Amino acid sequence: MSGPRFTALAASLPSTVPFVGPEVQERARGAAFAARLGANESGFGPSPRAIAAMADAAADSWKYGDSESYDLRTALAEHLEVDMNSIVVGEGIDGLLGYLVRLLVGQGDAVVTSLGAYPTFNYHVTGYGGTLHTVPYRDDHEDPDALLTKAREVDAKLLYLANPDNPMGTWHDAATVQRLIDGLPDGCVLCLDEAYGEFAPDGTLPPLDTSNACVIRMRTFSKAYGMAGARIGYAITHPELAAAFAKVRNHFGVSRIAQSGALAALQDQEWLQSVLTRTAAAREDLSDMARQAGFAPLPSATNFVTIDCGEGVDRAKAILDSLSQAGCFVRMPFVSPQNRCIRVSVGKERELNLLRVELLKQK
Amino acid sequence: MSGPRFTALAASLPSTVPFVGPEVQERARGAAFAARLGANESGFGPSPRAIAAMADAAADSWKYGDSESYDLRTALAEHLEVDMNSIVVGEGIDGLLGYLVRLLVGQGDAVVTSLGAYPTFNYHVTGYGGTLHTVPYRDDHEDPDALLTKAREVDAKLLYLANPDNPMGTWHDAATVQRLIDGLPDGCVLCLDEAYGEFAPDGTLPPLDTSNACVIRMRTFSKAYGMAGARIGYAITHPELAAAFAKVRNHFGVSRIAQSGALAALQDQEWLQSVLTRTAAAREDLSDMARQAGFAPLPSATNFVTIDCGEGVDRAKAILDSLSQAGCFVRMPFVSPQNRCIRVSVGKERELNLLRVELLKQK
Repeated sequence: MSGPRFTALAASLPSTVPFVGPEVQERARGAAFAARLGANESGFGPSPRAIAAMADAAADSWKYGDSESYDLRTALAEHLEVDMNSIVVGEGIDGLLGYLVRLLVGQGDAVVTSLGAYPTFNYHVTGYGGTLHTVPYRDDHEDPDALLTKAREVDAKLLYLANPDNPMGTWHDAATVQRLIDGLPDGCVLCLDEAYGEFAPDGTLPPLDTSNACVIRMRTFSKAYGMAGARIGYAITHPELAAAFAKVRNHFGVSRIAQSGALAALQDQEWLQSVLTRTAAAREDLSDMARQAGFAPLPSATNFVTIDCGEGVDRAKAILDSLSQAGCFVRMPFVSPQNRCIRVSVGKERELNLLRVELLKQK
Repeated sequence: MSGPRFTALAASLPSTVPFVGPEVQERARGAAFAARLGANESGFGPSPRAIAAMADAAADSWKYGDSESYDLRTALAEHLEVDMNSIVVGEGIDGLLGYLVRLLVGQGDAVVTSLGAYPTFNYHVTGYGGTLHTVPYRDDHEDPDALLTKAREVDAKLLYLANPDNPMGTWHDAATVQRLIDGLPDGCVLCLDEAYGEFAPDGTLPPLDTSNACVIRMRTFSKAYGMAGARIGYAITHPELAAAFAKVRNHFGVSRIAQSGALAALQDQEWLQSVLTRTAAAREDLSDMARQAGFAPLPSATNFVTIDCGEGVDRAKAILDSLSQAGCFVRMPFVSPQNRCIRVSVGKERELNLLRVELLKQK
């Protein structure tokens, strides 16, 4: 008997995973990590009010979540000063990226991103049969001019830019991003991933303009709001593009607990500010210890610091492995020349102190 | 400037939603429902241990969930006596159905289901460009022989059967389902949706056989385990088909809180049994009140009772509207002849008593 008949596309897909999770690594090494500093999670955690809201919502989780995430979208609309019909709530940015790619990208359609940018975006593009075109980073920054040139050259339907960038932590100012927006070729949608936007200095995020159907901004409760495990994020765009998500999204896919937590988190801007302050301090601390160890930390507008280890991938990989063996989970960029670096998320003092000891051994 | 260039498939999709959620209906009517009996949720709620586990996990939700759901899959494998590599954990059955359809169904590929069966499955098939072929229910049951005949006729890549069935609540015994499995045409995968399996009498679910790559069983923590809002379900199949999900799934898509809750829920089989007992009693109660109102409740192996209102869709719709206006959220099947019925989920005594009053007014 013959087996399942996969689509030609599905049959062609590799079984690789964009990221090997920390728990997977822990099982492989047979021990838990003492410092979890590799997934750009926020060790400062969610707002206590968000934790309380999620704990309260647990008993109510016999009910499906609201398919329209109405209360959260209303609150976000007020917070962002946009119409709620411009907001799509989904299962984290990863989920929303999947929906966006599915709407726009079919077999052979051209998509442009930077070489070494977010692999989960690439995973979706490949998964829907798109053709990825990449341009190199320039001085450890994504290169808006080169992205635009490539988008024109290949007639891209979709262009990805993370600002601030992951995995390098670098960023462009709002004027630069606005020039990118203004220069988009006809029919090319810019996916502007602002997962780390809250951490960035003022003047990094261009003003929201939901009259432009060719720009979609992705934001999340996973990073500054500290709720990665709850799986909730949102997109801001023209109402027509927002409405199109209803054609493909999992309408009841957002957890009711996550909806409650996100609403409470949004309403606790004081906590967010405290996280931003502590993140900035931890970033300084991380940068200092990198310098003490003889390495060069890159400036960062995120909750992680990318550390230039001064040589090529082998040296960075050796340091990463050594840190891992010592119980510190960190990551590194996937491609050259960025992979001369390691990427360390901020965390609480105890975890940073563990890292400091190990990092100094690398000197 | 031209707008986003949707794929031809995306552009062709309707903006309809498989289900209008109760909160959406509440906003439309301007008042909350007093009895939430329409979404086959379990009003008896999750196990207190699952609630406690989810509440505890809230503070930890700054961490992404384990991308492999290892602990839960290990526990499920032990519970089900299958290899853990035969288990895929995902964002509810809705999420898993989407992944399965995506793996198997491309433009024009034939899929078979019953006319009026689970619309979210149809939504996925249409969403990936598949061609749906349907066969009618037979005496309010899905019709295995007709499904098989149709699957052969159209060379179906995928065949859907829910056992027990939603929206009718009827079921087939294990021997009948096994005959369906044994009769599958070459290269046709049976998606056996057992969302309501825990409620069914012994002898309803055929033995698990993970050596057959053309059968995939879908189960969930949304129904008997009372965790619909947590968004977690699982599939059981041949390890090769299970592994294929890794090519398309959102690897970090399952909520960490849901993983903790599901594990605790699974470990509290005593609570599950108490829910099954209370569900059976509530089903009796619902059936009695339906008879008192002059209607004919169908036998049910689920947590809902489908009530034959004796005439056509207009009468059923009028009753549904009347119940809704009185604050009772229930649903009805979507197509004829099943739409002569309304579908009422079990619930707690207070909600059933509200419904009783309103239902008797329909006499």
